[in-house]
Amino acid sequence: MGDVFHTDCPARRLLGHLTGRWSLLVLAALDDGPLRYHEIRRTVEGISDKMLAATLRTLVDHHLLSREVGDGNPPRVDYALTDLGRGASTALQPLLTWIRENADEITR
Amino acid sequence: MGDVFHTDCPARRLLGHLTGRWSLLVLAALDDGPLRYHEIRRTVEGISDKMLAATLRTLVDHHLLSREVGDGNPPRVDYALTDLGRGASTALQPLLTWIRENADEITR
Repeated sequence: MGDVFHTDCPARRLLGHLTGRWSLLVLAALDDGPLRYHEIRRTVEGISDKMLAATLRTLVDHHLLSREVGDGNPPRVDYALTDLGRGASTALQPLLTWIRENADEITR
Repeated sequence: MGDVFHTDCPARRLLGHLTGRWSLLVLAALDDGPLRYHEIRRTVEGISDKMLAATLRTLVDHHLLSREVGDGNPPRVDYALTDLGRGASTALQPLLTWIRENADEITR
């Protein structure tokens, strides 16, 4: 696990991008299937437009999400996990499950 | 999984505390056993004294780490995962493994 501890390793940089709470929540929100921008915003309570836009851009840039622009005016924009993003989302589930199961005890 | 999405749930607050990169790295650093303050600082490259102190305080406050003050001048201070913290660290491993395995491809 040494690599994530070193500031100059790709793994450490990726950790920085992925482990903000917003990235984790957006990846988790898309676990059940593609969502439109406003659906993600509604699901992930408390995220600002600015943070959501920045988070989506980072995740798309890192090939974890796909962004599909459809028809309509304004055009419909769907976000979905890529295969890579699905791997991240799957790897994230044990942590989310643990948090969910232990939050009451810890924050009591 | 709805709970982590709601701003007023304990799970969401815990997510905020745990998923900063520093909390994750400190939990991971202690996975192999207790460490002294300066050993954690050396392992988790790039963490400032201010961030390390704040991170350790948060993790101790949430009963994820124990802090043991020993003999010596200055006294020796050891940090270790509690049973609760070991659960968090274990739940975190799949995410760290995934990051390690995919970082080169993603950041290429």
